[in-house]
Amino acid sequence: MREQVSELTTNRLSLYLRFLNELRGRGVKTVSSNVLAEQFGLNAALIRKDLANFGDLGVRGVGYVVEDLHRELRSILGLDRQLRVAIMGAGNLGLALADYPGFRQEGFRIVALFDNIRDKVGSLSRRGVAIYDIQDLKEIAKQEGITIAVIAVPAESAQEVVNTVVSAGIRAVLNFSPGALRVPPHVKLKSVDLTVSLESLSFYLAREAGRDMSDA
Amino acid sequence: MREQVSELTTNRLSLYLRFLNELRGRGVKTVSSNVLAEQFGLNAALIRKDLANFGDLGVRGVGYVVEDLHRELRSILGLDRQLRVAIMGAGNLGLALADYPGFRQEGFRIVALFDNIRDKVGSLSRRGVAIYDIQDLKEIAKQEGITIAVIAVPAESAQEVVNTVVSAGIRAVLNFSPGALRVPPHVKLKSVDLTVSLESLSFYLAREAGRDMSDA
Repeated sequence: MREQVSELTTNRLSLYLRFLNELRGRGVKTVSSNVLAEQFGLNAALIRKDLANFGDLGVRGVGYVVEDLHRELRSILGLDRQLRVAIMGAGNLGLALADYPGFRQEGFRIVALFDNIRDKVGSLSRRGVAIYDIQDLKEIAKQEGITIAVIAVPAESAQEVVNTVVSAGIRAVLNFSPGALRVPPHVKLKSVDLTVSLESLSFYLAREAGRDMSDA
Repeated sequence: MREQVSELTTNRLSLYLRFLNELRGRGVKTVSSNVLAEQFGLNAALIRKDLANFGDLGVRGVGYVVEDLHRELRSILGLDRQLRVAIMGAGNLGLALADYPGFRQEGFRIVALFDNIRDKVGSLSRRGVAIYDIQDLKEIAKQEGITIAVIAVPAESAQEVVNTVVSAGIRAVLNFSPGALRVPPHVKLKSVDLTVSLESLSFYLAREAGRDMSDA
């Protein structure tokens, strides 16, 4: 069944999880698919379908038990064990990601930064993540149990760095560099496009501008 | 009609636009909702519904004309005029975002960085974005026609900085700082959660681990 779960579905599962964190913090015990639907502007049937992919998680007439759904979602998303992450590139973006507090909250552990600039190797990020020479990736990846690499190098060197990551035996890659990267079929590549977020604001501003004009 | 379009829909429109950019680059003239569906792991009916929100963009038996759909999507997303963006915080994240090449490609123009550290004010990012004193935000926002602010400051100071942004008359805010921020109803706030991307990789690794075990 999990074979057929698309990336957009897993993205929605992440959003549900984030909201469940909030509900737990507020001491809420149960939540209906209608409340989830309203929160995310989705229809309740889609949410029930997303969650039904993973077994019978809802209780008729009650909805979902927040604590149980939270635990199930963490398990489905593989967050019930610690994931060890390397960041490739100790420039502004790499250093910012190394210290990003959100990763830690969900159990990701940034264990190393890698760069090829001699002056950077041997120093630490503000929160104490060590910067290693990219030539030592394979050895340190094995030693530290790294399973995810984040690409935060300029576009020109991104493909070369991804090749190094793949050679080191890492099978999951999160790419922040613009432009398409090639990986072999056994490696999962996900690219983050920060432009998408700005575009939803652009849509809002365009809509506002239209409303101002129709008000006039 | 646009009132009812959810944020998840506009995020999908952004993804369609990114794919249309690619199709244009490859010289492809038309695309069907089935091809779009396959590309994104969605069902074709949802895609037709997303696009039908904005008028009759498809041609029966042909699908969508790439050039026309591309132009329409850019217009729907408000990308047919230049949007001028300020980045609040000239730390690692702010500097990385100021120089992020993807924004430029879609017509966003990063016109200023703001910080409260005296040593930073007056200097430039690597690609030449000037760093101003946050006290001058209102004046420079007016002068430069800034309509979007990006929050790239530590969580502790994020709410204070957002208040300054709102006072300066900026009505669209993209927040990279973890934690909830409050804005008045006339301001649109969108928060970027970088953890979502890592979680989809985590899901993949958990599924792979399950498969390895069932193979054994």
